[in-house]
Amino acid sequence: MTTFPTFPEIHHLVATWLAEDIGRGDVTTSSVVPAGALGGAQIEVREPCIVAGMAAAALCFELTAERFEGVLEFKEIVGDGGRVDAGDVIARIEGPLAPILTAERTALNLLARLCGVATITRRYVDAIDGTKARIVDTRKTTPGLRSLQKYAVTVGGGSNHRFGLDDGILIKDNHLVAAGGVSDALKLARSSSPHGLRIEVEVATPEELREALDEGAEAILLDNMTPETVAEAVRITANRALLEVSGGINLDTVRSYAMTGVDLISVGALTHSAPSIDLALELLAPETED
Amino acid sequence: MTTFPTFPEIHHLVATWLAEDIGRGDVTTSSVVPAGALGGAQIEVREPCIVAGMAAAALCFELTAERFEGVLEFKEIVGDGGRVDAGDVIARIEGPLAPILTAERTALNLLARLCGVATITRRYVDAIDGTKARIVDTRKTTPGLRSLQKYAVTVGGGSNHRFGLDDGILIKDNHLVAAGGVSDALKLARSSSPHGLRIEVEVATPEELREALDEGAEAILLDNMTPETVAEAVRITANRALLEVSGGINLDTVRSYAMTGVDLISVGALTHSAPSIDLALELLAPETED
Amino acid sequence: MTTFPTFPEIHHLVATWLAEDIGRGDVTTSSVVPAGALGGAQIEVREPCIVAGMAAAALCFELTAERFEGVLEFKEIVGDGGRVDAGDVIARIEGPLAPILTAERTALNLLARLCGVATITRRYVDAIDGTKARIVDTRKTTPGLRSLQKYAVTVGGGSNHRFGLDDGILIKDNHLVAAGGVSDALKLARSSSPHGLRIEVEVATPEELREALDEGAEAILLDNMTPETVAEAVRITANRALLEVSGGINLDTVRSYAMTGVDLISVGALTHSAPSIDLALELLAPETED
Amino acid sequence: MTTFPTFPEIHHLVATWLAEDIGRGDVTTSSVVPAGALGGAQIEVREPCIVAGMAAAALCFELTAERFEGVLEFKEIVGDGGRVDAGDVIARIEGPLAPILTAERTALNLLARLCGVATITRRYVDAIDGTKARIVDTRKTTPGLRSLQKYAVTVGGGSNHRFGLDDGILIKDNHLVAAGGVSDALKLARSSSPHGLRIEVEVATPEELREALDEGAEAILLDNMTPETVAEAVRITANRALLEVSGGINLDTVRSYAMTGVDLISVGALTHSAPSIDLALELLAPETED
Amino acid sequence: MTTFPTFPEIHHLVATWLAEDIGRGDVTTSSVVPAGALGGAQIEVREPCIVAGMAAAALCFELTAERFEGVLEFKEIVGDGGRVDAGDVIARIEGPLAPILTAERTALNLLARLCGVATITRRYVDAIDGTKARIVDTRKTTPGLRSLQKYAVTVGGGSNHRFGLDDGILIKDNHLVAAGGVSDALKLARSSSPHGLRIEVEVATPEELREALDEGAEAILLDNMTPETVAEAVRITANRALLEVSGGINLDTVRSYAMTGVDLISVGALTHSAPSIDLALELLAPETED
Amino acid sequence: MTTFPTFPEIHHLVATWLAEDIGRGDVTTSSVVPAGALGGAQIEVREPCIVAGMAAAALCFELTAERFEGVLEFKEIVGDGGRVDAGDVIARIEGPLAPILTAERTALNLLARLCGVATITRRYVDAIDGTKARIVDTRKTTPGLRSLQKYAVTVGGGSNHRFGLDDGILIKDNHLVAAGGVSDALKLARSSSPHGLRIEVEVATPEELREALDEGAEAILLDNMTPETVAEAVRITANRALLEVSGGINLDTVRSYAMTGVDLISVGALTHSAPSIDLALELLAPETED
Repeated sequence: MTTFPTFPEIHHLVATWLAEDIGRGDVTTSSVVPAGALGGAQIEVREPCIVAGMAAAALCFELTAERFEGVLEFKEIVGDGGRVDAGDVIARIEGPLAPILTAERTALNLLARLCGVATITRRYVDAIDGTKARIVDTRKTTPGLRSLQKYAVTVGGGSNHRFGLDDGILIKDNHLVAAGGVSDALKLARSSSPHGLRIEVEVATPEELREALDEGAEAILLDNMTPETVAEAVRITANRALLEVSGGINLDTVRSYAMTGVDLISVGALTHSAPSIDLALELLAPETED
Repeated sequence: MTTFPTFPEIHHLVATWLAEDIGRGDVTTSSVVPAGALGGAQIEVREPCIVAGMAAAALCFELTAERFEGVLEFKEIVGDGGRVDAGDVIARIEGPLAPILTAERTALNLLARLCGVATITRRYVDAIDGTKARIVDTRKTTPGLRSLQKYAVTVGGGSNHRFGLDDGILIKDNHLVAAGGVSDALKLARSSSPHGLRIEVEVATPEELREALDEGAEAILLDNMTPETVAEAVRITANRALLEVSGGINLDTVRSYAMTGVDLISVGALTHSAPSIDLALELLAPETED
Repeated sequence: MTTFPTFPEIHHLVATWLAEDIGRGDVTTSSVVPAGALGGAQIEVREPCIVAGMAAAALCFELTAERFEGVLEFKEIVGDGGRVDAGDVIARIEGPLAPILTAERTALNLLARLCGVATITRRYVDAIDGTKARIVDTRKTTPGLRSLQKYAVTVGGGSNHRFGLDDGILIKDNHLVAAGGVSDALKLARSSSPHGLRIEVEVATPEELREALDEGAEAILLDNMTPETVAEAVRITANRALLEVSGGINLDTVRSYAMTGVDLISVGALTHSAPSIDLALELLAPETED
Repeated sequence: MTTFPTFPEIHHLVATWLAEDIGRGDVTTSSVVPAGALGGAQIEVREPCIVAGMAAAALCFELTAERFEGVLEFKEIVGDGGRVDAGDVIARIEGPLAPILTAERTALNLLARLCGVATITRRYVDAIDGTKARIVDTRKTTPGLRSLQKYAVTVGGGSNHRFGLDDGILIKDNHLVAAGGVSDALKLARSSSPHGLRIEVEVATPEELREALDEGAEAILLDNMTPETVAEAVRITANRALLEVSGGINLDTVRSYAMTGVDLISVGALTHSAPSIDLALELLAPETED
Repeated sequence: MTTFPTFPEIHHLVATWLAEDIGRGDVTTSSVVPAGALGGAQIEVREPCIVAGMAAAALCFELTAERFEGVLEFKEIVGDGGRVDAGDVIARIEGPLAPILTAERTALNLLARLCGVATITRRYVDAIDGTKARIVDTRKTTPGLRSLQKYAVTVGGGSNHRFGLDDGILIKDNHLVAAGGVSDALKLARSSSPHGLRIEVEVATPEELREALDEGAEAILLDNMTPETVAEAVRITANRALLEVSGGINLDTVRSYAMTGVDLISVGALTHSAPSIDLALELLAPETED
Repeated sequence: MTTFPTFPEIHHLVATWLAEDIGRGDVTTSSVVPAGALGGAQIEVREPCIVAGMAAAALCFELTAERFEGVLEFKEIVGDGGRVDAGDVIARIEGPLAPILTAERTALNLLARLCGVATITRRYVDAIDGTKARIVDTRKTTPGLRSLQKYAVTVGGGSNHRFGLDDGILIKDNHLVAAGGVSDALKLARSSSPHGLRIEVEVATPEELREALDEGAEAILLDNMTPETVAEAVRITANRALLEVSGGINLDTVRSYAMTGVDLISVGALTHSAPSIDLALELLAPETED
């Protein structure tokens, strides 16, 4: 299931980002590109990656063309989820040169980051292939990019954790301090939280895990435990709740966690430390409108 | 000089980012944190870094407190530009617990990225210490974060290149393709660009450099050249124009470029590949309002 | 738990509603009220009700006073949740007369509707006193007023169902048509819905109820059933899922449903057919500023 | 004459209301409705009413379809002003199932309220058939819905009073208190109000009526008078001013007021106490895209 | 009566205008003004005028100071409506130099235009001194400035005509073409226009004037007539309607029109051809914060 | 080069200006123009001028037609830059009458001002024909209209100075006071301003000019000098910097300044004192839709 991002959200975000770069107008392009010049360009990746964000990139060029009351054609060569190598062309754009040049940087900035998220997610997902665990993201996203980053996680084969603070109950360590411990926090949550939301709680020890299970927690976050402790937690839980692990899990260790039988492995690095993929736009033969 | 970001811009951005995370309300905190609970928290860094973004972080907490019609106090312990080590506390927050917990993630997400930019910039700046060159950023920023990322570059000791497409003329390779070469592009730019802007052009060879100097280019971008070729370019130019180098420059090679006598070294990685600094908010002794 | 509405939301909504009424300015008040006139007014209820919405009403007056760069004092006499009779004064306002008169209608329009929701909710809640059931609202709210109406439901002692389509899974009759029945719909939901959300499904017969329980539904909506059938459903379910009843339940029948042992009784009328409470603002002795 | 609501206003309002319900996305539909599923649905009324708001309802579906970059067809079967009975189908919708299900509740919430306003207005208008009086609305509207509610009043055969505080002068009881009585208030209004606006004043006794006529009031609001007193007022006025009655007039008494010869009967209940009409959307045979 | 502009409107407008000038920041001031520099400045007029717009000018400086999180003091020396000569100081500003310099141009641009409107209005008003006529403005305002220009008209002693197309009925020549003449247009207007609005119609001949009076027009616009024809129209009308004259009236001819006994003289030039008053901001002795 | 205004900016501005005039709807047109009436109209100029702003005028009509969900055709007869005489028709509009009448005033208000700017600019440009100087505008624009006014300057043959405070460094008299003189100000600017911006400084005497040249100023503003002094400045400068003159230059004196050999002549009057061109919309034969 991918509910994000739907069209109006993308449209608004891309328009805002274009405005950030274009400001009062692209003075270089206005000065040196002949008014009626037409032509084509292609977007190439310069390192292997999983493609993500093509609709947003297309929108960068289309909305910029509207500024000039022109129309260009964005032809997707490789769609979201495609696996590409250095040198592969993922899109061609044809039409007036001015908006192509003006939109270039915003489009590449966006693709670089979204392909990065999809690519790192794919690596984690591939690393646990064959296990029952799912790779999920966190709220450690870049401010303003959450909807697109979470979308890119699904493109890479990962699943989305809650989108924000309003669509999921996750009682974390600081909440436990405030509420006075696992039992008290769960009692409060059960009496006052919306009935449509499951209750998830973070635990640090097997004792807290048992406390959580006794109080009816429906999902439990095992934070910063070794695979061995996680395996013990799986046994204790015996399918009475969903188990999620997080904390310092990397590509070297993720499979050992997945083998324990946990349901979910959440990885902050999917969004806070994804690589920026190297891409470029190459202008092809320009021609002048006659 | 640091013109960005001024107050209204920060305020609007932070409010948008909070809304992205909070949505219709923090259901966990509403459920498990007693209504009148007061307390304190501190923000700790978990790896060495240069601090940047404290005003924005403070605003995350303050604007969230307004949602509850409450007031909290954000005490900055280390200001922007401060050099800190793992375990250092950079801020303390006191007041109602609910907004502290609700704002935590947005504030940390922001600090992680801005401290990252300042930290990597500082490394580049330190690497060229004693040379006349300046480290400058590029437009390879994260969509929506440009003003704060560029601010963080200055915190790290770097300088800002143009902010967007409207406040600087930089004729790049694709513009040259569209305009028909260095001379033609410069002629067009000189006849039609605003008189308040200098004209900068990218060149790939010493021949193009001479062409640019002959046409009165005031700044010249040397793209993807070896330090040796850059040194030759410095000699050819003989202070008739500002020289900027870019392209694949990293911490290992930056000093060799700086030693050539160029004026500016632009590094895309300052904003597209800055590390995400590890920080945490720790809740201190909570107390209940009586 | 009441996460809505927090302050920025109320502020924005009230400003919009004032603009709807005031437009380019209150020409009557400008024409006939002396510029410096000060005075007082009070808000009286003209029928018994539960008070709700006082903060929003106060904001109507305060934001209007800002238009005149003036300040008035809104003194709440009875707070949200208070039970009042015809003739009771619930607030006094003191200050410049102009903004009091300009804000009057918007404030009363809002209070009339919110007190109405709290009042009808209180009647339902009182009607099932002593049972384990809870009265919950629905999404049958007035467009634009959902957050305040749902807040007023809690003021009246009811609970909130999901706030919107994004924070709860409720598979209704039309979804079942689209998905091909209870089992298929639940299988789909379990494989693809966010792990933080419980899965609720609507059933029309005891057979569908068993199907839902077999597929692990965590909450089940019994739509348009008699109390007898509901009682049977409670027995079949045996606490394996939350049970919610809805459909044509009124103040005469609600207790018979509550006595069956269901968990939740959702009542669309709380928001789509709440009475509009009769309130008035009475101007007290005006005095002219000297 | 119906100047409201014109297209941009409806569009903005409907988009806001959809956002209120949809939030970050319809998780139920995303989870259980197959991505390419097409089909049809129809909107049925479940009680006799006058139809109003079809353009706004159509927009609910159309704007939601845009979120999925899809297109659906909304076929109006009965237009605004049509008189329908329980069971009548007023619209059919064909296209992708997802947006139909996602928009359903917002569209029905809106239609329920607007049909309610048109229906109650029609009853009042029919009740005074054959008299010269007109039924007019008031400013006792639901915050945020004024333009559409006032439009629905015209659909039901009523007329609109002023839209807001800026397009009409109506000196009410509280203004009289502030201004020092009918004569003083009218003198102030005549000297300072815009020349394009008529001056209307509220009076409580025949004496005040004569005072108002003497000061040149062009419209006079007779508040809370019996039909007998109103008849006397009509004789006193002798067509020198428009006469409007208001205050506690209901379907049983409205005709007796209309028979007195007054020009306007304003009824707050048209907008503050209109019934919510029962409507439903029924999904028809779905089919899967192949 | 002056209902415009109230505070929120001014605030929004001024913020927009500052953003238009400041964009991403005042690079000159950032570069050359020492960060902590304090000082004072004064605004001088360089030609005789009527002052208008001081509150808006003050807001220019105050909102700019907020960008720097600073506070400055704007001391009004001469208030709106004051008559000043070349060299007179109308305001002093004290505080941080940076926002004073940054806001200077926007504040002066605004004052120049508003003082211009008040000044030309005052000339027209003075020219008809002692007659019963009033000088009124038109809708020939500068897009975006209507509220402030209309306010400046009142500062100069003029009156406001309708603010926009929604708060007054004025049937002009093109409407008459569309409706088929004066009688038909007035019949349509009387049957369908809101009862709170007077009906005004433009006439070109004494015959049309009689037609308008017969159909109950409440105000009549005499367009492009000589003073003699206007005098005849006044006799024909005999106080049965308000009479307004317009069309090519200037300071030389306005008194001859006023002497005819008309009620209103509308002058487009008040807003479309007001002079731009020459003003300057002079920086006083700066001092550095220590 | 004309980077302003691009399409989204015009669209937003025009929509705002239409809203300013239309408000809640055009009550006159609604009342007197038959609903289905179609027809045509033409825009005539009533004095010689240079046409500017046709795209914005077209948008006024098109956006208004959207309010009625109708479509009209705006046929440009004379494009921007065209030189026309009194009586010339510059556009014809065909379609529904209502939106034509509703949009008329906003479109004419806009055209009157933009044609005025282009016309006065053309006069200045023609006056210096054959010299090397260029006429440039200033920041003395009408708040909110800068982008369109600056565009109209280019239509009239002038050039644009910086658009705002963020895209050019111009150290003026007040900055010199704050910074301590020409040398100090230039030193500060050179050390801290963005490298893409040239540095321009205002000087009042030949001595300051020499100081500016010594400090490497790239452009110098000669304020309020006689043509003789300017000629001396040109000799002193000897092409080492761009020279701009400003201050009290009018159509009588501009040529004598241009003959001195300066590069730029900036004229505030282009935007602060342009005439308002007299234009009218004439309705043609209306026809009723059958």
